[in-house]
Amino acid sequence: MSTPAAKTAITPRRDEDFPEWYQQVVRAAEMAEPSDVRGCMVIRPWGYGIWENMQRQLDAMFKATGHRNAYFPLFIPLSYFAREAAHVEGFAKECAVVTHSRLEVNAEGKMVPGSPLSEPLVVRPTSETIIGASYAKWVQSYRDLPVLINQWANVVRWEMRPRVFLRTTEFLWQEGHTVHETEAEARAETRQMLDVYEEFVRDHLAIPVFSGEKSESERFPGAVQTLCIEAMVQDRKAIQAGTSHFLGQNFSRASGIQFQSRAGTQEFGWTTSWGMSTRLIGTVIMAHADDDGLVLPPRIAPIHIVILPITPKEETRTRVLEAAAKLAGELRALMYFGAPLDVEIDQRELGGGLKNWEWIKKGVPLRVELGPRDLESGNVAVSRRDQPVKAKEFVPAAEFAGRAVELLDSIQQNLFERAKQFRDAHTRTIDTKEEFYDFFTPKNPAKPEIHGGFVRAHWNGSREVEEQIKSDLKVTIRCIPFDDPATPPEAGICPFSGEASPRRVVWAKAY
Amino acid sequence: MSTPAAKTAITPRRDEDFPEWYQQVVRAAEMAEPSDVRGCMVIRPWGYGIWENMQRQLDAMFKATGHRNAYFPLFIPLSYFAREAAHVEGFAKECAVVTHSRLEVNAEGKMVPGSPLSEPLVVRPTSETIIGASYAKWVQSYRDLPVLINQWANVVRWEMRPRVFLRTTEFLWQEGHTVHETEAEARAETRQMLDVYEEFVRDHLAIPVFSGEKSESERFPGAVQTLCIEAMVQDRKAIQAGTSHFLGQNFSRASGIQFQSRAGTQEFGWTTSWGMSTRLIGTVIMAHADDDGLVLPPRIAPIHIVILPITPKEETRTRVLEAAAKLAGELRALMYFGAPLDVEIDQRELGGGLKNWEWIKKGVPLRVELGPRDLESGNVAVSRRDQPVKAKEFVPAAEFAGRAVELLDSIQQNLFERAKQFRDAHTRTIDTKEEFYDFFTPKNPAKPEIHGGFVRAHWNGSREVEEQIKSDLKVTIRCIPFDDPATPPEAGICPFSGEASPRRVVWAKAY
Repeated sequence: MSTPAAKTAITPRRDEDFPEWYQQVVRAAEMAEPSDVRGCMVIRPWGYGIWENMQRQLDAMFKATGHRNAYFPLFIPLSYFAREAAHVEGFAKECAVVTHSRLEVNAEGKMVPGSPLSEPLVVRPTSETIIGASYAKWVQSYRDLPVLINQWANVVRWEMRPRVFLRTTEFLWQEGHTVHETEAEARAETRQMLDVYEEFVRDHLAIPVFSGEKSESERFPGAVQTLCIEAMVQDRKAIQAGTSHFLGQNFSRASGIQFQSRAGTQEFGWTTSWGMSTRLIGTVIMAHADDDGLVLPPRIAPIHIVILPITPKEETRTRVLEAAAKLAGELRALMYFGAPLDVEIDQRELGGGLKNWEWIKKGVPLRVELGPRDLESGNVAVSRRDQPVKAKEFVPAAEFAGRAVELLDSIQQNLFERAKQFRDAHTRTIDTKEEFYDFFTPKNPAKPEIHGGFVRAHWNGSREVEEQIKSDLKVTIRCIPFDDPATPPEAGICPFSGEASPRRVVWAKAY
Repeated sequence: MSTPAAKTAITPRRDEDFPEWYQQVVRAAEMAEPSDVRGCMVIRPWGYGIWENMQRQLDAMFKATGHRNAYFPLFIPLSYFAREAAHVEGFAKECAVVTHSRLEVNAEGKMVPGSPLSEPLVVRPTSETIIGASYAKWVQSYRDLPVLINQWANVVRWEMRPRVFLRTTEFLWQEGHTVHETEAEARAETRQMLDVYEEFVRDHLAIPVFSGEKSESERFPGAVQTLCIEAMVQDRKAIQAGTSHFLGQNFSRASGIQFQSRAGTQEFGWTTSWGMSTRLIGTVIMAHADDDGLVLPPRIAPIHIVILPITPKEETRTRVLEAAAKLAGELRALMYFGAPLDVEIDQRELGGGLKNWEWIKKGVPLRVELGPRDLESGNVAVSRRDQPVKAKEFVPAAEFAGRAVELLDSIQQNLFERAKQFRDAHTRTIDTKEEFYDFFTPKNPAKPEIHGGFVRAHWNGSREVEEQIKSDLKVTIRCIPFDDPATPPEAGICPFSGEASPRRVVWAKAY
């Protein structure tokens, strides 16, 4: 970013206009696009391929912790949805409502909605209430517990300011819904699933997070406690990457999930829910992409290695293509986290530069060029997407397959380290209101530069302070971090109220 | 079925009341249940586990034929949906319509739909029109073709007479949507995907099918040609198990999918679509289940082998459980069609008989009992779900893992052979109207027994004949079979009209 004149594949650069840069990265990688249905996106194959990898890997983690998948109805009768007061209030403004069950032609020959339904149906924005209705039937005794179920589904939350992947009216997600015999078990489940999310985001998406609890004002509607993981992206804002809710007995009371206890009494179940969505794809882009486009953590890349045969002359063409096929065969025989390496040979009749740039913009971790000169030298030219675009390392062709997985691991690790360094560099401990306000205020209001970051500051626990700061700066408490044996919470003074504070909390502007 | 007094796990038996037997098999296996949302089902973990296996295996076949997955919006603007006249007419009666974007509290304090949308949205019953809008943007030149995309999604078709898996308002499916440069390519794709379906249903679900073309009256609304595969289930009715549509240029004209041809002219693309749904789960149940419950083809079973430790005495308990764990470890190390064998040890504190019956009703292919006496004899007692429930084979414990995959293959093969024998036994070639009507008429109208089957009969090609027979017998043409080099179509006389017929077609009552 120090040489403003350097040509980059994405215009504008991150430091020129971050929101527009984001849109251009998504477009250049052909990941997704807005649809004509307001707020809904089309996820194109490259974006969906990333989601498939995320799904497969997360799903394996859910199953390893004893969960199974199921599927519940898309539609929620309005009366069910209204059973939990805070819940319906929290989602009312975002609900899409089905009111008719057919189309018909009216007197003017126009196609219009036909038969009104006796009860309107809400398109699920989340499924606590509809799943609760099933659980109420399934759970009769403590012997039926725990219920440990996850659902992969689409959900709809009407969005006035849509942004592809980050805020869309329809999005894809998973939602876990569990019922437990005791409060302690449900709280342990809530935490366990947050830990699964943290591990997934750290080890698979190469993004470090802060994890902790939400303040009351940021809780899921109807929850007793919401846990979350918060990532920092390259404009130094926070993105909530996953949440896990301890719902107490609120939803089991609303849905009638009751069981006979070991003591023979009738008790309400203790429930949890937890979710991650296609928003994670937006998080990956904002965390890792650069001014030349997407940069993918190898573990979720739809293609790990692209081979670019260089065939300038007809007489060497066959030999080059044969060598490329041989190399691809060696690579595809390798396993990478339980699945064979995905390798593409790009043989399209296009300029080599054009092809190379296409894969750069798609963020493929390793590009391998192979031409007639390489055949003679016995080398291949390897470019890592986490290194400058022009950088190449020449590796003996016979050795490349043996080093491929190690190279991918090194990219994965490097992306994580880079993201962690970035986050740590923009995380501050602040003790005065003045410094806090200064940190979150752009220096040039006419064209706000990237500024701010995460702040660890004391807080007296009051909602008034939160609201004041949100109104002044658009800054919110991202989480009250978990106790850390290495840095136990220290008491102090809330710089906004002058009152006592039991611990520092993490503040940031957020998506 | 010859000893009416024999006790079975499912009441009623198939021959007593087939529709009720079906519901009871679904319930006893805990596969799915109706929800309180009219026509929508809840797919429970056992049913969803079967769907996950079907998905994974079909998805691999789609990818092997060059398709990639993507995701398009759930909602279709009414104006898009109405672009193809036959299409909207075909689906109008089944559409769920979203008309409002929020909930609000009315003057009486009741929660009601809030803001009306400027244009109603149809919840997709199928996605030709919404996907067509994207393809119109993506396709500019012949170089952009073919577009080969599949989507896994939920769809909604309002259903007045719902039946779990077979007819539900919401169901899960995949829908492939492709665009091609030429008519010949699109027709080849349509056939290729039908062949994929036939292979999947035959080799994975162990069900033989007739494949061919639909008559005009049974075509997909808007299609030029609909190909299908038709299975026979145990009440001798037909189930359409998958369809593949050649759409000609109808939908590309409606959506504006145009491209510059090699000759420089502007042409409309040739499109196809093809789909399979959770209805297949209902087909598997009706094809293979028996009077003791579900019978699963091993390739799609969520659990291949259940080990039932018998621990009557405390002193032998530990040794039995250790032996069970050792056996499970050996089995889980085995691969079965690209994934490790799924093995469960059922250690629940329940009566052995109760547990055994639970797994019988769930249709697990192999049950292995292991108790103190087996430890002494060095054997395990193996029961195959395709054999009578009480049948056991004693296999040396040390040899069982070595034979497990072979046993599963044998069950898979046996289920196919059984289904094929059943179908062939109930498929007739008929040449007179009288015999045709007799074949499809129950002998006891008060309590219609299972009757009929598939009939190969001549047809003059007229819609009037189809309508008469449908109205008289509820029998329809399931398909006009493809040309078979072994049995080339022979011309003859249509027994209903006395007119010439170019070939026999397949008739049946259908779900």
